[in-house]
Amino acid sequence: MVYGAIEAGGTKFVCAISSDGQSIAERVSIATTQPEETMAQVYQFFDQFKLTAMGIGSFGPIDSNPSSAQYGQILSTPKQGWSSFDFLGAVKKRYSIPVAWTTDVNAAAYGEAKNGSAQDVEHSIYLTVGTGIGGGFVSEGVIKEGIGHAEMGHIFVAKHEGDYFDGICPFHKGCLEGLASGSAISARYQKKAQELTLNQEVWELEAFYLAQAVYNYSLLHRPERIILGGGVMKQKQLYHLIQAQVDKLNQTYISLPDLASYVVAPALGDNAGIIGCLILAQEQIKLSN
Amino acid sequence: MVYGAIEAGGTKFVCAISSDGQSIAERVSIATTQPEETMAQVYQFFDQFKLTAMGIGSFGPIDSNPSSAQYGQILSTPKQGWSSFDFLGAVKKRYSIPVAWTTDVNAAAYGEAKNGSAQDVEHSIYLTVGTGIGGGFVSEGVIKEGIGHAEMGHIFVAKHEGDYFDGICPFHKGCLEGLASGSAISARYQKKAQELTLNQEVWELEAFYLAQAVYNYSLLHRPERIILGGGVMKQKQLYHLIQAQVDKLNQTYISLPDLASYVVAPALGDNAGIIGCLILAQEQIKLSN
Ligand SMILES: Nc1ncnc2c1ncn2[C@@H]1O[C@H](COP(=O)(O)OP(=O)(O)O)[C@@H](O)[C@H]1O
Ligand SMILES: Nc1ncnc2c1ncn2[C@@H]1O[C@H](COP(=O)(O)OP(=O)(O)O)[C@@H](O)[C@H]1O
Ligand SMILES: [Zn+2]
Ligand SMILES: [Zn+2]
Repeated sequence: MVYGAIEAGGTKFVCAISSDGQSIAERVSIATTQPEETMAQVYQFFDQFKLTAMGIGSFGPIDSNPSSAQYGQILSTPKQGWSSFDFLGAVKKRYSIPVAWTTDVNAAAYGEAKNGSAQDVEHSIYLTVGTGIGGGFVSEGVIKEGIGHAEMGHIFVAKHEGDYFDGICPFHKGCLEGLASGSAISARYQKKAQELTLNQEVWELEAFYLAQAVYNYSLLHRPERIILGGGVMKQKQLYHLIQAQVDKLNQTYISLPDLASYVVAPALGDNAGIIGCLILAQEQIKLSN
Repeated sequence: MVYGAIEAGGTKFVCAISSDGQSIAERVSIATTQPEETMAQVYQFFDQFKLTAMGIGSFGPIDSNPSSAQYGQILSTPKQGWSSFDFLGAVKKRYSIPVAWTTDVNAAAYGEAKNGSAQDVEHSIYLTVGTGIGGGFVSEGVIKEGIGHAEMGHIFVAKHEGDYFDGICPFHKGCLEGLASGSAISARYQKKAQELTLNQEVWELEAFYLAQAVYNYSLLHRPERIILGGGVMKQKQLYHLIQAQVDKLNQTYISLPDLASYVVAPALGDNAGIIGCLILAQEQIKLSN
């Protein structure tokens, strides 16, 4: 068996091949430009193999509702050229194999739930804090969605008293992503987030916002584990700061798991998404039978 | 068949009987005092009937996790005498019949999903805005929980610019319940909410907070309908105000159902909870076989 995986991000596409759905045999990274150009390179990579199944985790918003006419498409996106691109259709047409289709963050949540930091629990959330903020929820082995995939990064939370930054989300201004994504940090301090490592105030404020998000998810989903990944979480001190703030927010209200094992890093690191896609590819074979 | 239902609130217990699980044949309302006293009256009512099954929707927090040692109990509550009360155990012992067990708001969400405003959709939320704020989420015919039931009323949302009220939640101060419950309205304006009907500012501010909650739930659960009930929603103008604010918050971000049919009143009115309990009672018979 040869499984293929595409983790399609706004900046780059990572394509990978695996024979067991767990270890990556080959991998390539392709810049995200126009669909035609990018997909030509994707095909060039995968054409080398005799694929059994494929898993795609795409940047959103996507249509993930199998009963919708737009199923398989990228929906309206500021990313030039990609709105209405029939990603799933294109890949299925090229390879005539079972293809799994979800968001990049759902794929990462699934990878972590099956093979990573949440493999021992029933209900888990994965949140990436990078250029943007997004997440997925896995419950009883299944990625949970309603009429569309979750948009966990865009919830509204309380502003910090001293924070006069309006936020940069093009849709919501001061939503979580608008206040606490890597791009928001850069915009607020006029410096890249990675250049602010020694400025403790930055990470206190960041933890203030991420803790509210973690707490809101906790109240609504009651998961057993929340995994925080993405570029901003390379600031490892954030885990402690967020755990402490969540504890402070909760007081004695709900019974939370021990916080040190509740708010954690992805065991699969930057591979969470691609591994999730490989597992989804494997499972798609059964679903397509 | 004779189905029993207990909607156990912090102020009163409503007990009801039905032969078809839909229409209520008899009903009694009992003041919530101490467990022994209150339950004696509950038994007095139900002892008159030959019950087939029972459904309980209780004020929370409750232990709703069947694999927990405290399953069936009311957890730590400020309500004098009720912490650790083994509600499910007591009722099962008294009647030796199948007994369903969930929160009052989950029962209402279930009632509305099966027989009320959400019977035509797959994913719905019911939120009560009364003395407190609480809600439940029903997806594909099932009440969804993680390691515990949702606490939808206690999420954090953004403060309104001009709002200097700190909030009254004993755990979180300015969480949604602390800012927007009926009790919060009374505390903010030093008047009962029902006496503020003509003060438009009150309802604009109330809609500002409830719209953020509706929007956050929308992003995380992506439901097809959100039902708002409870005493505060007797102010019917709130539905329009909330719909307008949700539209403003969302801009063009996610595709929401038509707002007039998305944020709606409970079709079962104040009976949502008790009807939910009756349906759960009926279904418990199959589960117990
Ligand atoms: N060591 C670091 N500390 C803080 N922020 C970082 C660090 N490394 C990357 N970032 C931030 O993370 C963001 C990129 O996130 P990443 O998850 O790597 O990619 P993307 O979200 O685009 O897929 C940028 O905003 C960058 O400033
Ligand atoms: N017509 C009304 N307009 C506004 N608020 C109301 C109205 N009727 C009741 N309330 C408020 O609703 C709350 C009671 O909510 P209710 O759902 O009736 O009971 P509970 O939440 O205690 O079960 C109180 O705070 C009360 O002030
Ligand atoms: Zn946003
Ligand atoms: Zn609270």
